[in-house]
Amino acid sequence: MDKISLDRCCVHTITTKAWALDQAVDNYMAAGVKGISVWQNAIEGIGPHKAGEIIRGAGLDIVSYVRGGFFPHTSSAGRAKAIDQNKKLLEEAAALGAPMIVLVCGASPDQPLEVSRQQIKEGIEAILPLAEKLNVKLAIEPLHPMYAADRSAINTLGQANDLAESLHSPYVGVAVDVYHLWWDPDLEKEIARCGAHNNLLAYHVCDWKVNTLDLLNDRGLMGEGCIDLRKIRGWVEAAGFKGYCEVEIFSDIHWAKDQHVFLKEITDAFVAKV
Amino acid sequence: MDKISLDRCCVHTITTKAWALDQAVDNYMAAGVKGISVWQNAIEGIGPHKAGEIIRGAGLDIVSYVRGGFFPHTSSAGRAKAIDQNKKLLEEAAALGAPMIVLVCGASPDQPLEVSRQQIKEGIEAILPLAEKLNVKLAIEPLHPMYAADRSAINTLGQANDLAESLHSPYVGVAVDVYHLWWDPDLEKEIARCGAHNNLLAYHVCDWKVNTLDLLNDRGLMGEGCIDLRKIRGWVEAAGFKGYCEVEIFSDIHWAKDQHVFLKEITDAFVAKV
Repeated sequence: MDKISLDRCCVHTITTKAWALDQAVDNYMAAGVKGISVWQNAIEGIGPHKAGEIIRGAGLDIVSYVRGGFFPHTSSAGRAKAIDQNKKLLEEAAALGAPMIVLVCGASPDQPLEVSRQQIKEGIEAILPLAEKLNVKLAIEPLHPMYAADRSAINTLGQANDLAESLHSPYVGVAVDVYHLWWDPDLEKEIARCGAHNNLLAYHVCDWKVNTLDLLNDRGLMGEGCIDLRKIRGWVEAAGFKGYCEVEIFSDIHWAKDQHVFLKEITDAFVAKV
Repeated sequence: MDKISLDRCCVHTITTKAWALDQAVDNYMAAGVKGISVWQNAIEGIGPHKAGEIIRGAGLDIVSYVRGGFFPHTSSAGRAKAIDQNKKLLEEAAALGAPMIVLVCGASPDQPLEVSRQQIKEGIEAILPLAEKLNVKLAIEPLHPMYAADRSAINTLGQANDLAESLHSPYVGVAVDVYHLWWDPDLEKEIARCGAHNNLLAYHVCDWKVNTLDLLNDRGLMGEGCIDLRKIRGWVEAAGFKGYCEVEIFSDIHWAKDQHVFLKEITDAFVAKV
């Protein structure tokens, strides 16, 4: 594997949660980061248009808008509301200038997983015409099985590939996140399949800490855990993906630090480990 | 689904961790529980022979001895030590009168998962002759993917089935635990396959809490979470399994209670939810 350069480094705004958008933009630029994935909370009070201008004005690429999905509900009213919310997010993504939104597909603990999966498919079908019209892609992100109760009923890359392929659209693909998928014995095969169907839209990196303290907010910086990031990037690149590697870390431990120190750790770890 | 009777209820000693073996035995009997799965710590200071006499004397069935495995290590000395330890456990299981040991197969964060998987296979092969000689079966327990870093590189029932089938022995099979496997879209199919190959040796129940607070010790009592236990028991029984449903709950919250109260909750939940 070739070493990677910072030219392929994108950071999710949530990774440096304490920073306002303009701070994040300035600091990412100063650190040599080239891309940014924008979380909804980062543009509150700014709006997507103005946020897009700030980011492009500084010279950063907007990689994705995060995050849509959460389609399943036991009531049809709940499902309709989720579809409306996703349409709103698509409009925001277009105004921002983001080429895709990431879908955390959702799940409801009050109904079977297979029902949630069907509702996810129907939800994506309902927003797909608008996605096509706005030229914003939909990246289905399979989530780790520990999130199957209420965050996503799509828990393996195989499932995400099945779903993406069943929707037959160049506007639907998959986001591969090592945190959710590293353990899967079929990962190499499913990454190759994802690429072969032109569905590999995004690649997210962080690490799995051996002693994970919290199911949500204890992700590791690259190198802090046990994921073989070089190997997985090799599979992703062999599948044809040459885009940004997006650093997405939720961590109470790292958020508690001076975020300038953390960003320096991120860029160092990116070059050394990704 | 037919309702289940307490005649098929087995409790793991770890579930009521605070109780010494004789207390657990007396209280399980008084509650109408018929089976017990014995953890190693429960027989410390008693020894397997005497423990077996206490349990059988009270009239409980010994369902399994828990737990062997942890085969992978980066050093050959570590792997040899693990094999010796598993042989010792098999001797203890035979002395106890347990028909099987449960294998938490192990993983090492310092080597690739596929290397750990090969070492697991080699470890089971190394102890299999003794298991056959002692008439103690080996139940491979696939663990939830959130334990792939250091507890088990076998994380789906499909993998466990592959491994069990590759070993071609009536002394190797699988333990199906709903906590580890409930999320899997292939679960019904893999349970059927497990039964069709005569590999379904054990069935463990508890629940997955929607807001799980801890990766290890926050399992739910049956009914506290989102697992459809009736449906999965239906699949297990359709696959030919008619044995004990083993209650295995690690929970700081439930362990903090009066264990008599907890045991009553367990037997009520068993009849109502399993």
